[in-house]
Amino acid sequence: RSKEFKARETQKPRKLRKRKKPKKKKKKLRFRRSGMAKVNVSDSGTVGSSVLSLDSIRESLIRQEDTIVFSLIGRAQFPLNSPAFEGSPSLDSANSSSLTEFFVREIEFLQAKVGRYENPEENPFFLDNIPHSVFPTHKYPTALHPKALSVNINKQIWDVYFKELLPLFVKPGDDGNYPSTAASDLACLQALSRRIHYGKFVAEVKFRDAPQDYEPAIRAKDREALMKLLTFEKVEEMVKKRVQKKAETFGQEVKCISDSGDGSEKKYKVDPFLVSRIYGEWLIPLTKFVEVEYLLRRLD
Amino acid sequence: RSKEFKARETQKPRKLRKRKKPKKKKKKLRFRRSGMAKVNVSDSGTVGSSVLSLDSIRESLIRQEDTIVFSLIGRAQFPLNSPAFEGSPSLDSANSSSLTEFFVREIEFLQAKVGRYENPEENPFFLDNIPHSVFPTHKYPTALHPKALSVNINKQIWDVYFKELLPLFVKPGDDGNYPSTAASDLACLQALSRRIHYGKFVAEVKFRDAPQDYEPAIRAKDREALMKLLTFEKVEEMVKKRVQKKAETFGQEVKCISDSGDGSEKKYKVDPFLVSRIYGEWLIPLTKFVEVEYLLRRLD
Repeated sequence: RSKEFKARETQKPRKLRKRKKPKKKKKKLRFRRSGMAKVNVSDSGTVGSSVLSLDSIRESLIRQEDTIVFSLIGRAQFPLNSPAFEGSPSLDSANSSSLTEFFVREIEFLQAKVGRYENPEENPFFLDNIPHSVFPTHKYPTALHPKALSVNINKQIWDVYFKELLPLFVKPGDDGNYPSTAASDLACLQALSRRIHYGKFVAEVKFRDAPQDYEPAIRAKDREALMKLLTFEKVEEMVKKRVQKKAETFGQEVKCISDSGDGSEKKYKVDPFLVSRIYGEWLIPLTKFVEVEYLLRRLD
Repeated sequence: RSKEFKARETQKPRKLRKRKKPKKKKKKLRFRRSGMAKVNVSDSGTVGSSVLSLDSIRESLIRQEDTIVFSLIGRAQFPLNSPAFEGSPSLDSANSSSLTEFFVREIEFLQAKVGRYENPEENPFFLDNIPHSVFPTHKYPTALHPKALSVNINKQIWDVYFKELLPLFVKPGDDGNYPSTAASDLACLQALSRRIHYGKFVAEVKFRDAPQDYEPAIRAKDREALMKLLTFEKVEEMVKKRVQKKAETFGQEVKCISDSGDGSEKKYKVDPFLVSRIYGEWLIPLTKFVEVEYLLRRLD
């Protein structure tokens, strides 16, 4: 499946990143060596934290599962509402995009203005030139390789989300509530995009752990060999099981009096097996695709 | 407690609503009489649906509990990050608001442009004049009394949220991740605001059910009597219990292998008792405050 996804041309290194002065490099070295450098340790365990390790990455991915399941459940409140993202062009003739595209574009611009894309975890769907933040910004540790950090497959994620995923987990229909639907779609898209592009951090840590394993395949541009090196089926099975359980837990009807008599079948807000499938057939393959794309640029 | 909250001056009827032509009135009558008029029944059970009944309102409030608990759990990923909403003025000298206020103001403007505030469930925090939607908008049934629908206590909700609630359920600290924090705060604020202003629908239905019970107190502007009429302690206790259970369910660590051996104390992302308190001490009183404010204008 992953062969279907072609990486968008690597963007030019972001404007914002360009502003960083050479002294940054020193910090990076220190960060690498000590593993405990005090670079504003983030309580949220995001890459804002100083310690980039497989453990901290696993922890973040697990937390992101909650966010993803929450966002899918949130979106499933509304029916498909396809005119929001397919048609319903703007009344303003200068703009021919769908309501949802208009909304996401504008929100991203606004989020850039408060510094969202300074965070290397966040990747925009539409912004080509990221505007400067109008607020003082946080300095995130530079954990990723500069020539590889701009891998961005959000165009594919957008298509996969609207064409393949959304019709699976929401009811068909149209209740006209497009503004709320678009806000829910944005929440899903951003959560999925963050998870998938987290592959860059996964790849970086795996590479640092055993560069000798990866270098030959990178030099040979051997995607298949890289994919093999990055694949751990047992881990993937565990992730799929866990997200299924999360969808069962978070998507259940919670009542005041627990009816433990499970005579009737439980009803969930999003089919838990579907969430497992979304991970198995889309999220995990797309994450590994990002990992491969990142590694292919890792020696540049 | 509710006496502490003073309703903001009733806003002028919204521009958008002004555009509606008299023929709307006919629809309203039909809707009232039949109780099953086909006005774009919403799958999401929001007021977009045609049947405004205590049952449909209860259902929506129960679903909104999930959204609120999800949003609180989402926000609790980040520490307090107070510079985002207290200080950190913009680098742009024309704008002296905090990052979060700037963000919410701009997002609301944008959401208005895709029609969010056509939905009588949604109330803006900052917009005084709601800009026209640039997309064709959904016609929501006019369920509320025109002279009373503009009750908006978001100024108070904003203060209560940042000054009282937030410090209760997030860890102290500052990880610099203000853009994500602001996005999470917005999600909480909008979920809380929707719930509290849903009081308008609750009040409308209760009034329609027994106008004779409410009219004397409304004419006498007797807030206390109205509050008594609107208070059902048993129901409130049930809601508090249910949201506590939801916080336990949605905020637990979900593992692949269930360790049913509950030897160690369970850890939750947000203290479930706190969520119950937030409902009991703030959300329910504020909702009832909105109900009273609405009823006081119900005969205008």
